[in-house]
Parts: sequence; C-alpha cells; structure tokens
Amino acid sequence: LPKYDAIIIGAGILGLATAYHIKREKPNQKVLVIDKKPAAGQGNTAKSGGMFRSFFYSKTNFKLANSSIEFYKRLEESGVDLGMRWTGYLWLFQEDQYKRLEADLKEMERRGGEFKLIDRREIEEKLNINTKAGESEEAEIMNLKNIDIGLLVPKAGKIDVEKLVSYYEREFLRMGGEVIYGTEVDEIIVEPEIKLELPGEPYFWQEAKVSGVRVGSKIIRGKKIIVATGVWADQLLDGIGVDSYQKPKKRQIFVVKAEEEKLKRLLYAEGFNREGCIPFTILPYPRIYVKPSIEEEAFWIGYADDFNRPFQLEEDPQPEENYYRYGIYPVLSAYMPQFKDANPINAWAGQYAINTFDGQPVIFEERNLIVVGAASGSGIMKADAIGRIASALYFGREKAELYGGEEFKVEHLGIKNRYVEREEFVI
Amino acid sequence: LPKYDAIIIGAGILGLATAYHIKREKPNQKVLVIDKKPAAGQGNTAKSGGMFRSFFYSKTNFKLANSSIEFYKRLEESGVDLGMRWTGYLWLFQEDQYKRLEADLKEMERRGGEFKLIDRREIEEKLNINTKAGESEEAEIMNLKNIDIGLLVPKAGKIDVEKLVSYYEREFLRMGGEVIYGTEVDEIIVEPEIKLELPGEPYFWQEAKVSGVRVGSKIIRGKKIIVATGVWADQLLDGIGVDSYQKPKKRQIFVVKAEEEKLKRLLYAEGFNREGCIPFTILPYPRIYVKPSIEEEAFWIGYADDFNRPFQLEEDPQPEENYYRYGIYPVLSAYMPQFKDANPINAWAGQYAINTFDGQPVIFEERNLIVVGAASGSGIMKADAIGRIASALYFGREKAELYGGEEFKVEHLGIKNRYVEREEFVI
Repeated sequence: LPKYDAIIIGAGILGLATAYHIKREKPNQKVLVIDKKPAAGQGNTAKSGGMFRSFFYSKTNFKLANSSIEFYKRLEESGVDLGMRWTGYLWLFQEDQYKRLEADLKEMERRGGEFKLIDRREIEEKLNINTKAGESEEAEIMNLKNIDIGLLVPKAGKIDVEKLVSYYEREFLRMGGEVIYGTEVDEIIVEPEIKLELPGEPYFWQEAKVSGVRVGSKIIRGKKIIVATGVWADQLLDGIGVDSYQKPKKRQIFVVKAEEEKLKRLLYAEGFNREGCIPFTILPYPRIYVKPSIEEEAFWIGYADDFNRPFQLEEDPQPEENYYRYGIYPVLSAYMPQFKDANPINAWAGQYAINTFDGQPVIFEERNLIVVGAASGSGIMKADAIGRIASALYFGREKAELYGGEEFKVEHLGIKNRYVEREEFVI
Repeated sequence: LPKYDAIIIGAGILGLATAYHIKREKPNQKVLVIDKKPAAGQGNTAKSGGMFRSFFYSKTNFKLANSSIEFYKRLEESGVDLGMRWTGYLWLFQEDQYKRLEADLKEMERRGGEFKLIDRREIEEKLNINTKAGESEEAEIMNLKNIDIGLLVPKAGKIDVEKLVSYYEREFLRMGGEVIYGTEVDEIIVEPEIKLELPGEPYFWQEAKVSGVRVGSKIIRGKKIIVATGVWADQLLDGIGVDSYQKPKKRQIFVVKAEEEKLKRLLYAEGFNREGCIPFTILPYPRIYVKPSIEEEAFWIGYADDFNRPFQLEEDPQPEENYYRYGIYPVLSAYMPQFKDANPINAWAGQYAINTFDGQPVIFEERNLIVVGAASGSGIMKADAIGRIASALYFGREKAELYGGEEFKVEHLGIKNRYVEREEFVI
C-alpha cells in the first residue's frame, strides 16, 4: 500500500509551493518532499537573482506572476518577512527600440500594467550615466546603443528567495507535511496494475503507472509522484520516457561592491522608489541587468546569454571570470562609467530550466506522475501560481484558483491542450 | 573564405533529400554532405519499417506525406525503381474505437482521403484471424479487443528505403554534390563576425554565427550548416545551446518467416491489393503492426511503445528477445493464431527522433545554422517535402513548393511561428 498520497521530488521553490498548496487544500493528505540537497531551496532556487515583476505582455506570464506577487505582498502585510523591496524595474531604451514596443506597451497599460516613461535628461540627472554610449567608436563593435528613454515599472522589485522558500517549507511542515533532505531519488518506479511476475514487466499491454521512487535499495510508494527538480528532471524522466520540456542553461551573477563614492551615488539614486535606490535596471543592448542590493551596499550584475551558451547539466556550475571581464565589464562600464575598474567581490552560477519552445512553465500529469517545471528563469516570481496549478492538477480539477480569485485552466500549462501567450517583452 | 555554400551533417534520408533539393534548385551551390557512417542512409534510416501512407488527419501530415508519396510514385513511373509496393494499410477496430474515429474519418474523406470499410465477416473470410480476441479470458489481462471493422486505405504501402536514399544520393552527386563518409563531425563552429582575438570569444555582445564544422583538428567552413543527424543532433547542438526539439526512442522490428502453410496463407491473403498480400495491418489494441514482405516471404512485426520506454541515445540499439516473447507474441498470436509458435528469424532496432511536443518535423534556422529533424518516425514518407522545405529555408524563401505544386509556409515547421495540426489518427 502506498505510504504517501504524494511524493514530491525537489524541495526547490516549485516543489515546496506545490507541497504547501496541496496541504493547504486538504490537510489530511500525506505528502512527502524529498531532496538530494541538505536543506530546502539549495539547488538553483538558491542561485536566483530573486527579482519579480508583474509587468509582462503575455497574459499567461501576467496572471502567474501578478497573482504570485500579490500573494507574497499579502504575506508581508500580514507579518511574514519575505524581504520584498519594491525597487521597480527600469528598462533603458534607444528611441528605435522603444518605438517597436510602443504598441505592446499601450496594450499592457490598457490591461492595467503600470509604468512611467522618463526622458534622457531625467535619466542623466538621476543616474549620471552615459546616454550616448551608442555613439562612441568602441561601442560599434559591441553594438551598444544610446539611452533615449526609460521605462519605469513600479510593481516590481526583489524578494528574499530563502525567506520565501522557508515560508512554504515551514507552513508545509506545520500542516504535517514530511521532508527528507540529503537523499537522492535514484529512479521513478513504474509498475503494472496487475503483477504477473514476467521478466521485465510491465509490458506495453499491461496497465502501468508510476507508483513510487527508489532511493538506494529502498522503495517509497506514493499514489502520485510529483517531479519538481528543475534542470535535473530528465535524469529521472528519461528513464521512463517522459519529456520534461526543459533544457539547462547556466546563468551567472557577479556582485560588485559600491565602494567608491561614484558607485554609492549610483546605488542610492533618488527619485525612483521608496527604497531610495536605483531600480533593477536593464541596459538597452546587450541587456545586461544591474540589481541594487542595499543590504550589501552592492550591485548584482548579470546577463542571460542564449545562442552559443551550451545546454549542459552541471551539478555545481561555476561563474567564469572572463565572462565578467570581457563580456559584461566593457558593456557595463560604457553605459555606467561608475563601474570603471570595479571588480566583483563575489560571483556564482546557477542553471535555468528553459522551455525552449515557448518559455513558459510546464505542468502535466501522466499515469500518476506530475511534472512541474520549465519555469525558464522566472520560477520565483510565479511560484505561488505554479504551486496552485500543480495542486489543482493533483486533485484532478480542471481549474486552479490563483491568489486573488482568478481562475486558471490547468491544461493550458500542459502539453496536449497547451495554450500560452508568447512573451513579447523580455529582459 | 567558406569552402562550401552548405555543409549538411547527416546522410540519412532527410539530409540527402535536403542536399538534393538545394542542388536541384541551384546547381551552382557548393554542397557537402558529411556522415559518420561508411555510406548513405546507414543510421536510423536503415532501421526504418519503410512504410508510407498519405492517410492522415492532420493537414500538416497529409501535405508532407501526400506530396512526398506522389513524388516517389512519379519517380517509379519514370523508371526509377524504389521498390514501392501498394499493399495498403488495414486498421482493425473494435466497434467503439471506430465510433470515436467516425467523425474524423468523414472529414478525411471530405478532404479526399480514400478508404474502404470492411466488416467482420469479410475480415474473417480473407484473413482467417480471431475477431473475438477481446472475449477470451486471458485477453482481459492484455486489454485485447474484438475486431468488428476494418479500415482499408489503398494509397499506402511500403518503399525500399535503401533505394530511395540511393536515388537522392545519386542525383545529388550527379549534379556535382560532394560527400564524405566515415567522418564524424566533432563540433559546430561559432565565430564572431569581427574577430578580436579575445580569449573565449565570441562574447554575447559580438555578432556571431555558425561558420563551419570541426572534424578532428580540421575545420571545414560553410556559409550555412545544416544539421540533419536525427537522434544525434543534440550531441552537436547542445554545445551551442540550440535545441533540436527531439528525443531518441528505441523502436524494434522482428522478422517472422511465413514457413508454415497457415502463415503463407495469411501473407498471400487475396482481395486487398494488386500485390496479392495482406496489407500493412494494425491490430486494435495494443496497436501492433504486421507488415508483409513478399520478397522474403516473411512478416515484419513491431510496436511503438511510448510510456516507460526510455529516452536514451544509443549508437547501436539492440532488439530485445523478451520484447517479442512477452510483449508482442501473446498479443499477436491471440489475434492471429497463425503466428502460434512462430519465432523471429531476424530482428533489429533503430531510434525514432521524436518531437514530444506535437509529433511533427522541425525545420528552423538560427545564425546560419539550419536544423532539420524530429520526424518522429515518419521521416521516410515525408522526406521529399521536408527536403523541399529545408531547401526553401536555406534559400531564404518564405514558402516551399511541394511536389504537385502546393505551397507550404516554411515557418509553419519552425518554432516561433509554428503552426501544425496535431495528428488525431495515429497507428
């Protein structure tokens, strides 16, 4: 007899949000979360930039992110510290880039997306950065652009990922959920409904379903198995011929201290938000981002390279010194001369689980196996909605109720009847 | 300077059909086909069942297969021996299965899909098989069904894959195309447009594109590189972070000689086609297929198992004795008692390159790299159309002209603007 109603593999943000919502909906469910790391959120969740925004073009993205952010906000308002900082997002554009987005922005505004445009003069005044980077000679080779306009989005900022993970874990445990850490699942078990003791069964003519997980020589049985392991999903799913629809891609973050006065002034730029700091800022091209971290008096800097960055599963991906030195630094310092001669004091790398088809999460069920993943780099900001949708799927409902009351058709994030809107507005 | 206009990696059916159509359209193009195997079509192309049908529900499938089959037919009529045998396809159904398909079949008929229904009595008369398999006690455990109705599709049959591959290769060579066999491409080369001699370039701010292939220590340059390696695509594409949208899945074929009189009578069943043999026949459930091979006085038997069959790339996949003995045999002999005690005299295994998202081929271009694949087990019967579409993409055209004159929008098999109809009518 199955010991658990649900076994969730992966104690990252998606696994724990799913675990929490299953217990929240039906506290009598016996739910186990199992993870190879020694604690919750220690995989790629821990490597995240921890940013959030509800400013998306795609209705799918908007619903998932907006409802999750509203939920996190409500938690904070009710006294749960999630370290949310409403720094806002600031996209910097050259005129021609902005023009191409103008129609989409109008549509986003119509749907309630809040933003403010700021002109070059104001950008220069507030940030003292180089708005004419596109005109320098060296810039040609780096395809730099001028900064003519800024798009400031207030409903956005950062969240303390560890605190968010801890919240879901704590509440899950409080409701009687079980966790096993430091324990790797070796295999997902598939068994026939009726065992015939044939060598190599189940055969294709036998009704077969996922019935548990193997950990070393031990089998733990569950009525449903939920795989929420991020980039590691294929290690478990390839063996039973189920696709996770995601590919691993390394993402690096470099931390630069605001030591010199000029960097401090940039960090504590006034007039953007109540935090009294520069917003999460995205350069025109290449779209390097600069995230303020007042707690550390530092910036987190990164870039999501795509073509020619390998798909490669790594247990412990490392940041590359040259990626900062020759990749990020020349661009960053051309736009923001304050970074001249500044070096990272810290850096790390994680992996995005990218859905290369449409960039949106994937949630589907097959023979008592539920797969939750492919969050493609925006798993933190969508985690609550993803957890609710996975929970609805687990309970066999057609629709999930997102925080705030909006309904979401579960199959829209599945494969067969998938219906997602492509994002037009990417970082 | 690039030595070639196009380098096509993979001399399977898709690579050679693409090579042929590029040369056919513009004979002055310098085109190289390179393959690790010692000759053309020696990878999974050689393992194919070699069946074709233009009977599909999905318009995408129909267009691709029908135009290709028409092309092959025209070749045969003009004197090229492709070993085509119009055996037809015979799907066997239980009443309830047929009822669920009835509306789709009407629609297919409306679109010109030809078929004939035959009743149980006629099936019994012509094939002398067990139409009451679903009623036996042992059948319950195997989920067998009765055979109440047969759907006979005449525009379908088999083709000699080796001859088809040879045709494309021969014509490609005749037009001045070059081939290198027994040579493995180790890497696809990505280079910046402007080389700066930075360590690890190209960096993300450099314009970069695919510019050639590395074979051992040698680099062969081409203006465009076309990857048509089937299941091996990820070995080349993962390194540059491009998805092939396909997963490898083993498929096995078992050859059973028609030695005994009862099997001979089944093989040479009259009244279905001009070949005087049983059509390619698909059992109701599980959908095991039985293919006549008059040349060998034998049957080819297979089944496309899905769930629990691993995704696993193998250089030399092997057929499994138990797969026939415990998987296929009990089902096959329950429906077709003629196979009782018959054992395979030969067997082999290949791999399908499955597009797990929608089951249709993928053809797209990114930075001078063209990827052609994910034919999902129907690459032979669609090869000509796929070659024409890949060639159109290569020449930068929006539409391909399929054989017979119908146009096909190239981007419909791409990713971003993909538009394919899901197949409702699978074997």
